[in-house]
Amino acid sequence: MNKLIGNAVVGQSGGPTAAINATLSGVIRGAMELRDEGIIPKLYGMRNGIKGLLEENLIDLFEIFDDEKKLKTLEHTPAAALGSCRKKLPEAVMGDETYEKLIEIFKKNNIRYFFYIGGNDSMDTADKLGKYSELCGYEMRVIGVPKTIDNDLPVTDHTPGFGSAAKYIAATTQEIIRDCAVYDVKAVTIIEIMGRDAGWLAASSALGRHICGAEPDLVYLPEKAFDMNKFFEDVKKALDKHPNVVIAISEGIRDAEGNYVGSSTQSGATDVFGHKYLGGSGKALENAIKEKLGCKVRSIELNLCQRCASHIASKTDLDESVTVGRSAVHAAVNGASRVMMSINRVSDAPYRIEVGTVNVHDVANKEKIVPDEFINAEGNHLTDACIDYLLPLIQGEVDIEYKNGLPVHIIL
Amino acid sequence: MNKLIGNAVVGQSGGPTAAINATLSGVIRGAMELRDEGIIPKLYGMRNGIKGLLEENLIDLFEIFDDEKKLKTLEHTPAAALGSCRKKLPEAVMGDETYEKLIEIFKKNNIRYFFYIGGNDSMDTADKLGKYSELCGYEMRVIGVPKTIDNDLPVTDHTPGFGSAAKYIAATTQEIIRDCAVYDVKAVTIIEIMGRDAGWLAASSALGRHICGAEPDLVYLPEKAFDMNKFFEDVKKALDKHPNVVIAISEGIRDAEGNYVGSSTQSGATDVFGHKYLGGSGKALENAIKEKLGCKVRSIELNLCQRCASHIASKTDLDESVTVGRSAVHAAVNGASRVMMSINRVSDAPYRIEVGTVNVHDVANKEKIVPDEFINAEGNHLTDACIDYLLPLIQGEVDIEYKNGLPVHIIL
Repeated sequence: MNKLIGNAVVGQSGGPTAAINATLSGVIRGAMELRDEGIIPKLYGMRNGIKGLLEENLIDLFEIFDDEKKLKTLEHTPAAALGSCRKKLPEAVMGDETYEKLIEIFKKNNIRYFFYIGGNDSMDTADKLGKYSELCGYEMRVIGVPKTIDNDLPVTDHTPGFGSAAKYIAATTQEIIRDCAVYDVKAVTIIEIMGRDAGWLAASSALGRHICGAEPDLVYLPEKAFDMNKFFEDVKKALDKHPNVVIAISEGIRDAEGNYVGSSTQSGATDVFGHKYLGGSGKALENAIKEKLGCKVRSIELNLCQRCASHIASKTDLDESVTVGRSAVHAAVNGASRVMMSINRVSDAPYRIEVGTVNVHDVANKEKIVPDEFINAEGNHLTDACIDYLLPLIQGEVDIEYKNGLPVHIIL
Repeated sequence: MNKLIGNAVVGQSGGPTAAINATLSGVIRGAMELRDEGIIPKLYGMRNGIKGLLEENLIDLFEIFDDEKKLKTLEHTPAAALGSCRKKLPEAVMGDETYEKLIEIFKKNNIRYFFYIGGNDSMDTADKLGKYSELCGYEMRVIGVPKTIDNDLPVTDHTPGFGSAAKYIAATTQEIIRDCAVYDVKAVTIIEIMGRDAGWLAASSALGRHICGAEPDLVYLPEKAFDMNKFFEDVKKALDKHPNVVIAISEGIRDAEGNYVGSSTQSGATDVFGHKYLGGSGKALENAIKEKLGCKVRSIELNLCQRCASHIASKTDLDESVTVGRSAVHAAVNGASRVMMSINRVSDAPYRIEVGTVNVHDVANKEKIVPDEFINAEGNHLTDACIDYLLPLIQGEVDIEYKNGLPVHIIL
């Protein structure tokens, strides 16, 4: 097979994670291997995703990453070193000026490979761009490279970025449980965790089950309708057992009618993809318990920390993220296009994965939620099957470089 | 000198920290050395501080900590392994029934050494108990062992527990800055950090200055009167420079009249020591910016995580905490009583400390705030002198034991 010779461009999109830069490093590593084979002379990075690409805001990544140490630092830097965006592309219709502009930029820079690292909204972008380049007859391989702390992409066992967020959440929950245990007066602590429709992150709070037995007393996910009266009963029962009750909830928990528990959602504000802005479910439950049960109560929102805490990243997650990025380049050069890279779990014990590809259209705008068998019958905790699925993803610690007491990051 | 032979008791009090168990380990290590010399046959741990002691809720610490590995795990476990309390003792007046009950328990268990690990409210307890045992002629050495993430104790260069909280805050601030930098639209992120009257913890957010240049654009401490109009001007200026403005604030910031910015303080609720419950200053400023400047704004409360994040503890802090605990036992056996252990910085470069003792009465109920020379003229950031003071305290990483992807804790 004749391999397509040309430059490549890579971008990051959507919310940051602790692993998205490891995936970028994987793409750089893969592209360097193909540079050495004479296939990819240049790898551009687009600043702020497709938005920066439209302004031809490109940087030369081979030039910047001229040694191994810089790539390692990149892998340990949280968020998105290239910058991100939340731009949604229009429908891919022949002649559309956004796509025409993009094709012009691709032609000008001889870009034949396009890698887009992101969540399901980003897969929508990759899907449309791949479709348009086919429509207009510009030969370019378009690959979506998954990342999302939410773990809500279908057709992949899990997503890069999720394991590190899960590890941070599990470790922090353990620490909060220890902290709350110091007083012997009745108190409830609520940990609000990200997750709009999928409860994977909140489920990770229970990962201490097999370590020090440190898991929340109760865990509520958006997958099960939230009933306030049942909730009060659950909390009362838990307080009867011991004084320091810790509860983990997803930000997106809602009642049987679909009304979010978080009060701030009542504004109805949405982002450019039409998703409702959430937040505030912890505060709402804090107030409800205060009024109804009258005991001491506190809510903690893990907030941005859960997606950028690279200082406690999962080694498994970062290693897989690099592998997925690297594999994307090789897959593209071998002919793949309009696919998303996927992770297939081929064995549980020992845990082993293989990287594959799936049609990007099967991923875009679809969500994978926590299945029934992972949630207990009462809908207020996780089953052991869930723990078994999650546990391999947080294994291993990353040997991070510290300087003057703090982790070293790279800034592009 | 004849050494006082008898048992010892140790308790933990006040809010938990990531280092208070390292201090406990130090006391255990010191007491074991004196057991071997025939001075301290038994070391009791009181559960939930003075409150548990009054119920004679004691455990045998030599029996539990029979190997080095358990002590190491204790040092890496956050919060207070013995449990804590917020009990305030009455004035030490001859015949008071609380003190008589305590003396009875001391006599019954032949307790001649009393170690109380805590903040300035705990020093008040140690001060009163020492006074009463002198009044009633019961020979017992009473030593206060400092800990507080707030670093607000006078007569000591800094307090065990602070360095680990500072390291977590600095590392997390760096990560949040990276996270916020990914979008190129104007946005303000406010990090609310603990600190009622002393801004040491919020000041620590600037520790990235000499590492990746990652420090907040603005930092506001309770030491300087907060002016909302000046704040808006500061934020506007910062937004003119770059789109992603990050601001760190102490929970306790207040205006020139002493009114807290945090709205929830308006309830006027206080704890048993008469301190106002705080919280909510970040949310209050978030709302103020939203209304006044109209840009995207988010507030993040580091909450309990900043005091229990032992997974990123400062090695310097934990090592010093062990040393201070161990020194307390030796000081007591050598005749000291009614003192608090203190840390004296004898050299900046290389950083070197010596452990000493100070009259516990000089500490109780007094606070050390951030001095003027550590705050810039505008009152919205820290000087290099402040960074120089703080930086040695976060040095070094702790080699924590992980099991199944999570740090291992000990539960007593």
